Amino acid sequence: MKKLLFFLAVVLMVQGCNNSYQQIAIRKKPQNVILLIGDGMGLAQMSTAFYYQEEAPNFVRFQHLGLHRPKPSGAQITDSAAGATAFSAGVKTYNGAIGVDSSQQARKTLLEIAAERGQSTGVIATSSITHATPASFFAHVEQRSMQEEIAAQLVHAPVDFFAGGGIKFFARRKDDLNYLDSLKTAGYLVDTTALPAKGSLQAGKRYGYLLANDGMPKMQEGRGDFLAEATQLALEHLSQDKDGFFLMVEGSQIDWGGHANDGEYIIEEVKDFDRAIGAALDFAEQEGNTLVVVTADHETGGLSLSAAEVRMQRTYEHINPTFSTGGHSASLIPVYAYGPSAAKFQGIYQNSDIFGKILEALRW
Amino acid sequence: MKKLLFFLAVVLMVQGCNNSYQQIAIRKKPQNVILLIGDGMGLAQMSTAFYYQEEAPNFVRFQHLGLHRPKPSGAQITDSAAGATAFSAGVKTYNGAIGVDSSQQARKTLLEIAAERGQSTGVIATSSITHATPASFFAHVEQRSMQEEIAAQLVHAPVDFFAGGGIKFFARRKDDLNYLDSLKTAGYLVDTTALPAKGSLQAGKRYGYLLANDGMPKMQEGRGDFLAEATQLALEHLSQDKDGFFLMVEGSQIDWGGHANDGEYIIEEVKDFDRAIGAALDFAEQEGNTLVVVTADHETGGLSLSAAEVRMQRTYEHINPTFSTGGHSASLIPVYAYGPSAAKFQGIYQNSDIFGKILEALRW
Repeated sequence: MKKLLFFLAVVLMVQGCNNSYQQIAIRKKPQNVILLIGDGMGLAQMSTAFYYQEEAPNFVRFQHLGLHRPKPSGAQITDSAAGATAFSAGVKTYNGAIGVDSSQQARKTLLEIAAERGQSTGVIATSSITHATPASFFAHVEQRSMQEEIAAQLVHAPVDFFAGGGIKFFARRKDDLNYLDSLKTAGYLVDTTALPAKGSLQAGKRYGYLLANDGMPKMQEGRGDFLAEATQLALEHLSQDKDGFFLMVEGSQIDWGGHANDGEYIIEEVKDFDRAIGAALDFAEQEGNTLVVVTADHETGGLSLSAAEVRMQRTYEHINPTFSTGGHSASLIPVYAYGPSAAKFQGIYQNSDIFGKILEALRW
Repeated sequence: MKKLLFFLAVVLMVQGCNNSYQQIAIRKKPQNVILLIGDGMGLAQMSTAFYYQEEAPNFVRFQHLGLHRPKPSGAQITDSAAGATAFSAGVKTYNGAIGVDSSQQARKTLLEIAAERGQSTGVIATSSITHATPASFFAHVEQRSMQEEIAAQLVHAPVDFFAGGGIKFFARRKDDLNYLDSLKTAGYLVDTTALPAKGSLQAGKRYGYLLANDGMPKMQEGRGDFLAEATQLALEHLSQDKDGFFLMVEGSQIDWGGHANDGEYIIEEVKDFDRAIGAALDFAEQEGNTLVVVTADHETGGLSLSAAEVRMQRTYEHINPTFSTGGHSASLIPVYAYGPSAAKFQGIYQNSDIFGKILEALRW
């Protein structure tokens, strides 16, 4: 009987260890969270990564996929402010809202909750750091256009690493105040020239990189590998905190390519965002305790990977990107998850549920 | 020690039973497979189901989502023939190919394999039953246009239940042969007037319903609940076979609405397809042993759920469907899976992998 029970226990234990990544993806609690947002990256935008580069994109590394419903409150189609606030604070709010609900009340964000729990935090974007998506993680204002106020709020926000554009909202302001100095007074090491060398960031210190007057240059205009490098630097720095970290990374300009109905612009920005995803996944694979969630706020441009016309004939042999709007669209948006509790992001749910799913994964 | 081991065994057993649907979705082997194909149903088409009806669509009932890569051989954008043959026979083939590979060799289909294994089989479409998608499951011809040959092949195919349009390819042919008679000689009970009453189909008999000269009427022209009703009838009939069944159901005309750049046409056809999905899921939930996989072959029309314009101003308060091509597009295509082994359909893979995933799920 004793032997039988022992045998039974061993069999069950072995069976329990089966499908080990599946089990981790379903049950294990992550310590760190990296949320990557491709602004305006609908499924067609993401699909360009499969047609316009030789190697397989990093998207294929995700096993757990879901779809979110991006509808904001009071409208059918979301902007980036309401879209990012749904992720950051778990509320359906009005277009234009930054970190506030539909009654214009400030709502605590994932980044702020992580900081309260003693974690390190970071925000990276290829727009100004005061733009709608990054701002929705550390600021609370009624309208996204209040970028000088958002800059002022960043000074006192619990952000340990940020990188992006936006010098003018700190240093060339209508009120003539210099918030770059305020950032330094608040303990930030601020650099407006370049990202630092790897291995140079010290544990416990706060770093801010503002590398353009407003948005960063386009990839086509020589932005280089800023997004993946900033992601690697942030991960290197934030992971020095034994309590873990929360990092948000935005590929901001996929959206701008969509508004411009410019296929090449989108293709290059998606490739760049995919490299940042690769950096996040490489870290997560090695570290083992990091949940990586990639999604978009909405689709922009009504992009379609249509057939090219050759001598007035449509031919399925070649792709020609086409567009049908200069604005956003209402399609559901894919969510890609990797790591402990990634399985929570399966299925179809509201954009605002991503907030709760991340907290649930962390068991907060 | 004995008590300790017993306790351990019980704990492990309880843990093993946790997340029970997850476990079923990962490990259990299904007996029956229902594959539903929304022709031309990209993510924007599917998303209409969330905006143009009161109740939540049946799509929300899927926990396991993936994306497939629809590229055919020899081109960038697929047609429905190559797309359906990728699903039915597991090969990337040329546009126009029905159940044959890129060397024009016949390849055994999921439906034929199921029949060889002693299962019952069914094919349902709102197009002619000889159209590209349904044909790719039971016929083998070099070009989709050979619909009279496809009709002739159906007579000798191992199909136990079919329903759709296409009378003319059987009875009003260039060769003046009457393949409706041939169907009857081959043992089919053929009806060209209406679906039968529930409960009237006899185990072991073969039934064919050809209810239109070519394609069935549009939903907007009064097709009624044909697709969901035919699905229910097929499930009732095929599930009488204790060896299980394979059923393919196509929402054919989502594609036709896309080619016509007709938003209303698409919206009504997607709603109709969603009701057929509901019928499949209701059956699968009750039966417990059925894998349901829903996908599309490709997107059609470059549909976008764009912002409507009110007095020349774009407003996110209202949706206006817009299009940017009259043909197909190359975006990746969502896959929705439910039931035993549904977890196999997670991640990003080739359209032709769906064939192997279904066989793997069945352990064939």
